[in-house]
Amino acid sequence: ISAAYESLDYDTSINSVLVDEERTKGFQFVRKKDMARWLVVLITGVLTALVACSIDITIESLSSFKYQWLKECTDKGVLTGVLIVPFLLWAALNMGPTLIAAILGSYIEPMAAGSGIPQVKCYLNGVKVPRVVRIKTLVSKVVGVTMSVLGGLAVGKEGPMIHSGAVIAAGVSQGKTTSLSKDFGFFEYFREDHEKRDFVSAGAAAGVAAAFGAPVGGVLFSLEEGASFWNQALTWRVFFAAMMSTFTLNLVLSAYNGVPGKLTYNGLLNFGKFDDLTYEIWEFLPFLLMGVVGGLLGALYNYINKKLTGFRMKYINTPWKKIVEALGMALLTACVAFFMIYCMDDCREISESAEYPIQMFCEPGKESAAASIWFQTPEKSVRALFHDPPAAFEWLTIGVYFVFYYFLACFTYGLGIPSGLFIPTLLCGAAWGRLTGILIKFMFPDQDWVDEGKYALVGAGAMLGGVVRMTLSLTVILMECVGNITFGLPLMIVLMVAKWVGDFFNEGLYDIHIQMAGVPIMGWEAPSLSKNIYASEVMNRPVVTLRSVEKVSRVVSLLQSHTHNGFPVVDSIPEDGQASYFKSFGTLRGLILRSQLTVLLKHKVFNENTELWQNSKVDIHLFRQSYPRYYTMEEVELTPEDLNMTLDLRPFHNPSPYSVMACTPLPRIFSLFRALGLRHLVVTNDNNEVVGMVTRKDIVRFR
Amino acid sequence: ISAAYESLDYDTSINSVLVDEERTKGFQFVRKKDMARWLVVLITGVLTALVACSIDITIESLSSFKYQWLKECTDKGVLTGVLIVPFLLWAALNMGPTLIAAILGSYIEPMAAGSGIPQVKCYLNGVKVPRVVRIKTLVSKVVGVTMSVLGGLAVGKEGPMIHSGAVIAAGVSQGKTTSLSKDFGFFEYFREDHEKRDFVSAGAAAGVAAAFGAPVGGVLFSLEEGASFWNQALTWRVFFAAMMSTFTLNLVLSAYNGVPGKLTYNGLLNFGKFDDLTYEIWEFLPFLLMGVVGGLLGALYNYINKKLTGFRMKYINTPWKKIVEALGMALLTACVAFFMIYCMDDCREISESAEYPIQMFCEPGKESAAASIWFQTPEKSVRALFHDPPAAFEWLTIGVYFVFYYFLACFTYGLGIPSGLFIPTLLCGAAWGRLTGILIKFMFPDQDWVDEGKYALVGAGAMLGGVVRMTLSLTVILMECVGNITFGLPLMIVLMVAKWVGDFFNEGLYDIHIQMAGVPIMGWEAPSLSKNIYASEVMNRPVVTLRSVEKVSRVVSLLQSHTHNGFPVVDSIPEDGQASYFKSFGTLRGLILRSQLTVLLKHKVFNENTELWQNSKVDIHLFRQSYPRYYTMEEVELTPEDLNMTLDLRPFHNPSPYSVMACTPLPRIFSLFRALGLRHLVVTNDNNEVVGMVTRKDIVRFR
Ligand SMILES: Nc1ncnc2c1ncn2[C@@H]1O[C@H](COP(=O)(O)OP(=O)(O)OP(=O)(O)O)[C@@H](O)[C@H]1O
Ligand SMILES: Nc1ncnc2c1ncn2[C@@H]1O[C@H](COP(=O)(O)OP(=O)(O)OP(=O)(O)O)[C@@H](O)[C@H]1O
Ligand SMILES: [Mg+2]
Ligand SMILES: [Mg+2]
Repeated sequence: ISAAYESLDYDTSINSVLVDEERTKGFQFVRKKDMARWLVVLITGVLTALVACSIDITIESLSSFKYQWLKECTDKGVLTGVLIVPFLLWAALNMGPTLIAAILGSYIEPMAAGSGIPQVKCYLNGVKVPRVVRIKTLVSKVVGVTMSVLGGLAVGKEGPMIHSGAVIAAGVSQGKTTSLSKDFGFFEYFREDHEKRDFVSAGAAAGVAAAFGAPVGGVLFSLEEGASFWNQALTWRVFFAAMMSTFTLNLVLSAYNGVPGKLTYNGLLNFGKFDDLTYEIWEFLPFLLMGVVGGLLGALYNYINKKLTGFRMKYINTPWKKIVEALGMALLTACVAFFMIYCMDDCREISESAEYPIQMFCEPGKESAAASIWFQTPEKSVRALFHDPPAAFEWLTIGVYFVFYYFLACFTYGLGIPSGLFIPTLLCGAAWGRLTGILIKFMFPDQDWVDEGKYALVGAGAMLGGVVRMTLSLTVILMECVGNITFGLPLMIVLMVAKWVGDFFNEGLYDIHIQMAGVPIMGWEAPSLSKNIYASEVMNRPVVTLRSVEKVSRVVSLLQSHTHNGFPVVDSIPEDGQASYFKSFGTLRGLILRSQLTVLLKHKVFNENTELWQNSKVDIHLFRQSYPRYYTMEEVELTPEDLNMTLDLRPFHNPSPYSVMACTPLPRIFSLFRALGLRHLVVTNDNNEVVGMVTRKDIVRFR
Repeated sequence: ISAAYESLDYDTSINSVLVDEERTKGFQFVRKKDMARWLVVLITGVLTALVACSIDITIESLSSFKYQWLKECTDKGVLTGVLIVPFLLWAALNMGPTLIAAILGSYIEPMAAGSGIPQVKCYLNGVKVPRVVRIKTLVSKVVGVTMSVLGGLAVGKEGPMIHSGAVIAAGVSQGKTTSLSKDFGFFEYFREDHEKRDFVSAGAAAGVAAAFGAPVGGVLFSLEEGASFWNQALTWRVFFAAMMSTFTLNLVLSAYNGVPGKLTYNGLLNFGKFDDLTYEIWEFLPFLLMGVVGGLLGALYNYINKKLTGFRMKYINTPWKKIVEALGMALLTACVAFFMIYCMDDCREISESAEYPIQMFCEPGKESAAASIWFQTPEKSVRALFHDPPAAFEWLTIGVYFVFYYFLACFTYGLGIPSGLFIPTLLCGAAWGRLTGILIKFMFPDQDWVDEGKYALVGAGAMLGGVVRMTLSLTVILMECVGNITFGLPLMIVLMVAKWVGDFFNEGLYDIHIQMAGVPIMGWEAPSLSKNIYASEVMNRPVVTLRSVEKVSRVVSLLQSHTHNGFPVVDSIPEDGQASYFKSFGTLRGLILRSQLTVLLKHKVFNENTELWQNSKVDIHLFRQSYPRYYTMEEVELTPEDLNMTLDLRPFHNPSPYSVMACTPLPRIFSLFRALGLRHLVVTNDNNEVVGMVTRKDIVRFR
């Protein structure tokens, strides 16, 4: 577990200055805040959708340009017999954008690399991942993911869109940006971790809604990832954000598609509408088997990717190595694609939906099926596998494609570029799902219920379930993506079976990456058989405590010599020497955070500076001003006189921190942390004297 | 707030006997319990659906018999000019079933009256409503609701189905029934409030899924009502229960409808499939207005019903009065229906879907539109208003129908019969929604986007939102009911506006009924401006405490003289006399429940009975055996010698009860209660001495 990650202060400290604010501002302020919350989620939803649209549209137009050019070049190459030119062009068109993405993801903002979902998940879990909700991250991510998709890599744009939603929510709600160091002064009262985290969950939901057009799925995604601290009013706001996001998305895309205002236009569905998705009851048998296969393939995928990530952490650890790796991958993808198109001899009638039919070595009027699947973005390939008419692909084409793409996708995830995981996984799944459909059709040639597209959808679900191991939200997202409700049951069963099978071998891919990054993420439930582990075994001691009225010099030296972020406040600290096992560190009076102490020191709120107090400038704003980056000890400048003064902590500390007795079993501690989003828990003895501290990291050790 | 309601012990007390069980049974037991949980939700889902199907099918066949008979009689009456006979037949056919329903709902099991949703909501909120999850309640409810729908009253069957799901879940998970006093011995380890409540939430979701065919809506319903204690594994089980329930329902209904195994048959959707539900962006304006109207109508509905409920509580308080009232209502409904059919002169071509076309005074080949809407169950009327072709009803017919039905429905809810609220509310809404559609069509005659059915749907949503004030789950339920995803956004906006407008005047109807019944239900968030209310103001004192080793006679006398359900366990109780304001009642060591004490007394687990201890029969089973009804003090028979013995509470009490200091502000207490499902919270002073007790009822006082 890495020490770089700090927890969020989700549990608001209700100290005197906060109560004062409530008392002076009254009910008006409560109402104003409530309205502001709705406003923030509204803006978040709209902005998230706009960002998602611009990614969509940019990719769409640039890639149509790319594939048009490639097609012309290929056609010419086939005529003249010189196929090296289109290959080189392809390689260049892959490597160019990839280079930009790789520079963004390694030099400019390493936090922008990857899908962003693990980071959002950690944030919702209560861990502050540095720089994860910065504007700079957003920009790098948005530009980067556009480039990586354009670079033809096996990546999707959905994960980054979800991350974008989270960043936008954080940015809007704070009314200031750290990246551009600009403070608009809006929404000053939302500058605390509790509010910010709530908005981020709305942003993530808006992101899902914008990425997949799945508002309910978005809400459920936020729920599945961050449900421990949840309430109804928040749920509604999250839903509202998701709905606004879908609405905006549909509005813009319908205009882009030439049907402005037609919000129910089916072309807006990501994977096309499955109109008549019927199934017979005996089809559950193949579905169940596909769930098992999905679980196995997913577990293998995760296994390979885990090894690879370990390798990357060890050897590919400088920006330029990452760039070289990404470029290599882009080249490899071009090679594989070209190789397949060159070798696979699967010709078919040109389908109406074909945008860039490539004839290759087929007769005139026909196109190469292998080329058709490679000459488009992965998202469109998913759509093709779902909806292309029966017998559009030969089994060999799809089989070879699946094998190549499976490994390409697996190797690509974890490169130093912004890259989503959903679409490539769905694509692998759709490929083997369609293969299964072809197989079943081969076995039962006279049955009319065998629809290859349906099996592609089931396969896609199974594969995704096997890799990421979510069930509820994914089921709903897939249902919304294909605009079909009645098919929810098979999808859900397949996802669940895939998850169960996969969980037998390893964890979900996001969790693997989170673990490997050493983030102290908390599980959903206390480990089983932990009822006989007690607080006294979990806690850390000795405890660094502060007196209610403390000398400035002692505060300063403690802050300098310890990295802890929270200190119990006690009446008086017992002299050393009475060392028993349960040595106490004073009777608990409260808890003060490092951030609060630094503010007090910076502004010299000392007992001796009475003029400060009389002007009553010591209020909650003082603390909100510097959120979220509090002063470091270097920024606090104190004169020797200051050091001799005293600091009264009582108006600022949290006078009622949650505390438990030393005999409390781990499951109870766990539920306190989970349900209340705690950061520090004080352990006391029978007389309410501090004997230990528990933080997230202490609990996470028990698995 | 009534004292009749006790809280659930959602917070499991981890005492020595429980830890012993974990230690001896090990990981095997954890796995076994986990499998058993899945099994329980599976059975719950299937049984709930079967119960729902049998209600559906019984109503369907009996009502087709009823309306067939009525139709023949009416046709004859029109021919002969003697319309009094069909009227009398109608009245009799209404009053007969209503009588049965009323007897069930007042004499047999009063808990079966009403929709059941308020009771389920209270249970999920953590309040033990007596007899709510009994088999007897289930049977009365199921038979009763069938009869009330058959009686032609303005009631639905959906609420009771949800309640049935909850009862089934409780029954299955406990493996025993109190009503039939039969113990199957299954699932003994689920006999505690925590597990039971979790299963009930799955059952409620299964109920929604079975009632509306809306699995996702079911999960969200459980979330909206009971989301405070929630975790991911539970969510999945809830979803699984809902899915199994939908699956079973579709399986049985598809067989009943003659398309066995065709699980995606559209006829299974409750309100028929809206295939092409498009909308233009400017339609948001009428939608918003309809939301406002829905909110106003809903608020009025709730206001009238509230007054009426007050009246009923005061004057209609004996079973026979309730029966008379229900019969009167049945008669009134028949009168209104007959009056409308008699007076309204709205003839139309016989539609293909018409099952019992009534000619009345129309020309041959035509039918009376007013009769068509009354000659069917309310659910089918909703479907007709949604899907009947344009101009199927004249505006006057619908207008009159709406006015009558609004008041009928409003008066009917709260009768002493099992009766759901959803369908009548939807029906009112659909009526005025369709009316709005007709109006808009009248204003813009040339526009083709005006679809009366669509406006009926929006009206139905607005009305339901205005009456019950849920948003997220209702949106999804409606989406799933009409099999259309793209229309989710307008529905959600309408529901939200209706809720906002309604909330301006009063609460949702379920909440009104809960309040009037005096149930101590907890809100979602602490009241605003409560940060300066401290535990010392909330708590109750003096506190009745017990010593760790206590004389049996004192335990007995305390249990007899106090009704409290939880007692802090202390080292020694300070002598009286040191009366200060913060008088303490001993240093906190643990907390013991009344139920645990009665078990100890009943089985005479006293220090002096050492042979008991050596046989080690004193384990967790002793406590589970008697769950959920523990012994009363009369059932505990103690000899005078027993009274002189001593009781060691230490192995049985909860050694680490949650406690807070007297200076803790209300919001923190509130989140503890909400997030952890607490029943008792001990308030201590700075030295960990007990100074007060807080229970749910103390908190609920602050609104
Ligand atoms: N005031 C304190 N005195 C002694 N030990 C502490 C104190 N605060 C935290 N700890 C312990 O220090 C160890 C390292 O935790 P760390 O210093 O990162 O805590 P933190 O920074 O307060 O928490 P987080 O990093 O999650 O915000 C943990 O085992 C924790 O229990
Ligand atoms: N051991 C106790 N000593 C003194 N007061 C108590 C004790 N237990 C509960 N109370 C108080 O008694 C009042 C009535 O509560 P009641 O006796 O119904 O509590 P309860 O039965 O323990 O809780 P619930 O009814 O919710 O299960 C409340 O104000 C509560 O704070
Ligand atoms: Mg730290
Ligand atoms: Mg009580």
